[in-house]
Amino acid sequence: MPSSFEQAAARVLARADELATYTEEPGRITRPVATRAMALARARVREWMHLAGLETRVDALGNLAGRRDGPGGLLVIGSHLDTVADAGRYDGMLGILVGIEVAERAERKLDVVAFADEDGLRFQSIYLGSRSFVGELTPHELGLRDADGITLREAIAGEPAPPLYDPRTEAYLEIHIEQGPVLEAEGLPLGVVTAIAGQSRFNLTFAGRAGHAGTTPMHLRRDAAAAAAEFVLAAERVALDEPGLVATVGEFGVPRGAVNVIPGRADVTLDIRHQDDAVRARATARLRALTEAIAERRAVPVTWSAISHQDAVPCTPALVERVADAVAATGVKVRRLPSGAGHDAVTMARVTDTAMLFVRCAGGISHHPDESVSLDDVAVAIEAATRFLDGLCTT
Amino acid sequence: MPSSFEQAAARVLARADELATYTEEPGRITRPVATRAMALARARVREWMHLAGLETRVDALGNLAGRRDGPGGLLVIGSHLDTVADAGRYDGMLGILVGIEVAERAERKLDVVAFADEDGLRFQSIYLGSRSFVGELTPHELGLRDADGITLREAIAGEPAPPLYDPRTEAYLEIHIEQGPVLEAEGLPLGVVTAIAGQSRFNLTFAGRAGHAGTTPMHLRRDAAAAAAEFVLAAERVALDEPGLVATVGEFGVPRGAVNVIPGRADVTLDIRHQDDAVRARATARLRALTEAIAERRAVPVTWSAISHQDAVPCTPALVERVADAVAATGVKVRRLPSGAGHDAVTMARVTDTAMLFVRCAGGISHHPDESVSLDDVAVAIEAATRFLDGLCTT
Repeated sequence: MPSSFEQAAARVLARADELATYTEEPGRITRPVATRAMALARARVREWMHLAGLETRVDALGNLAGRRDGPGGLLVIGSHLDTVADAGRYDGMLGILVGIEVAERAERKLDVVAFADEDGLRFQSIYLGSRSFVGELTPHELGLRDADGITLREAIAGEPAPPLYDPRTEAYLEIHIEQGPVLEAEGLPLGVVTAIAGQSRFNLTFAGRAGHAGTTPMHLRRDAAAAAAEFVLAAERVALDEPGLVATVGEFGVPRGAVNVIPGRADVTLDIRHQDDAVRARATARLRALTEAIAERRAVPVTWSAISHQDAVPCTPALVERVADAVAATGVKVRRLPSGAGHDAVTMARVTDTAMLFVRCAGGISHHPDESVSLDDVAVAIEAATRFLDGLCTT
Repeated sequence: MPSSFEQAAARVLARADELATYTEEPGRITRPVATRAMALARARVREWMHLAGLETRVDALGNLAGRRDGPGGLLVIGSHLDTVADAGRYDGMLGILVGIEVAERAERKLDVVAFADEDGLRFQSIYLGSRSFVGELTPHELGLRDADGITLREAIAGEPAPPLYDPRTEAYLEIHIEQGPVLEAEGLPLGVVTAIAGQSRFNLTFAGRAGHAGTTPMHLRRDAAAAAAEFVLAAERVALDEPGLVATVGEFGVPRGAVNVIPGRADVTLDIRHQDDAVRARATARLRALTEAIAERRAVPVTWSAISHQDAVPCTPALVERVADAVAATGVKVRRLPSGAGHDAVTMARVTDTAMLFVRCAGGISHHPDESVSLDDVAVAIEAATRFLDGLCTT
């Protein structure tokens, strides 16, 4: 006979399946902010909140909050209801649905929040939901236009004020699929998030000299792609040398390249992340020095231009330890790890104490229809979150 | 006071400037086969041939031959009159114009030939001119279509028969810009071509696993671009280890690449050339073995597919030595080198003894408006070719 956590997990999975049917693209899960699909999904989640005994409120952007009243300081559990294009069914939704299960059995004050925009599909700007929730949306953001030229302000037909965020909030907990392969590789269902990694992104251009592939001897070449290839391996080496660092060259292009032409130019990107900003800065500096040496040795000058920098967002240490205690109480080995991806917790960390609990996902796959979690893992996640609340009550 | 070779060289440069005005694209030099620009250029070259005392004939494709009658076996001097898109003014034309200067002062039997298609711009098939000249054009080639769907047969309005090639021909000499930087790097005006390098071209695909740049630790990645980057450097290493070998990765693409996605696939090309087919085969085999090791170590399988193979075309050793003697007689240091690019001599070598003389070009630049030769270098080329003829007469 299934435990009550397993029954709750089965309901979470069934509801995730149902939410997957609310889409702007038949046959795929694509649910941007301020669309009919989002309105239908939100209405359904609101029904489930009512069934769980929560009192709901909505803002103009489409954020939804469900309140369980009770003793204790206010805790917010949340995640996002929007998706990328051709998405999976758990990224975001899992945290909301688990939150409802936890709230249903909670005996303390609690908000469960479904943020209306995190992935930024429609307006190409992330965290609009949580930023609206805490009252941070700027006129610039309200003026962002979608692919049809419609502004966010027009799309939501109203000002997102006052914010749903309750200033009495004492903590924010987000349950989310890992979106990476670490927990699966280590055979663990849950992960305790220590921080959301900081990241820097760059465009690099290597400027060599194009030449005829047949008539230019090797020693007279200034091959931009060969220099860029060395850079790719240098980035990999720097990341391997620094525990927890990830560095990715995701794009590699040779403009006007042809099979019989020595590349005169190569354009690559760099994405580098670590939970400690100082480590990221040090690794980036080391990679820049290595790259300068490559450029000089090959007479292929390189230029860097920054695309973006985001500082790391540490979770609140005391809250992280409570999540760890709750995980340990379920009998699961505690695995602390940073989040390499951004989450609504980035916004929430500016206004309250924050923690995150990761749930293993099959193959580390996310942002893809193959996104998958197991019933057992979801059950233990619900149990851990429930024990986390109990822990908060007793302190 | 300029020597007669310098006067001839000045006329060659002036004529090259004039030919540059016959183009299908105003402001650029673009002269494909069977166009108005080609007809005008051919008519002008024909006038110059008549001025030099040559008797001319033309075939349906537009090849032009000018005959100087006299004693001795028949020698053909030629090169091509067509260009790539946005071309320089010497690739091809230089050999025709130098040939006319040589023929004007020759006292032996000689054909100067202007081939109507070598670069293959219009029908994407190279050597159509020389193949028509020797009677090798196939029905398949006559059925090739240009970008407007017009076949070669329709474009030339007639069958290119009988061939202009005279079976009594005893030798073919082609004067051509080097299209590479070797002579300039060594401070030499002329090069004696030993062979036209053989070449192999491949498409390679590295199949890794796409993943999230933030959430996938380095040790769990199967990065296709990193594997391809190692391949680029392995190809370079193999070429550096083998004298005379050139290996080029001219295209490098990451389909659906994004700054924050680990490349799941990388597509690259390989172009590998050497004047000795056995060396090319050995180097290719070594590179394949290195690539398999990269693929296995990274769990990123690689597939190779051949685009094309062309065997090397050696120049005729006895004729190469006569060209070398003629160069030495001008007081220029003899530099033997292979041609990394293809030339009309590839076709001519199937029917007669063949030699080529390279002329230094500025920066090794070719297939570009900046293509440039010096008057002094052209003068010494005319002198060397003239001495080559004299050498033939006395043997």
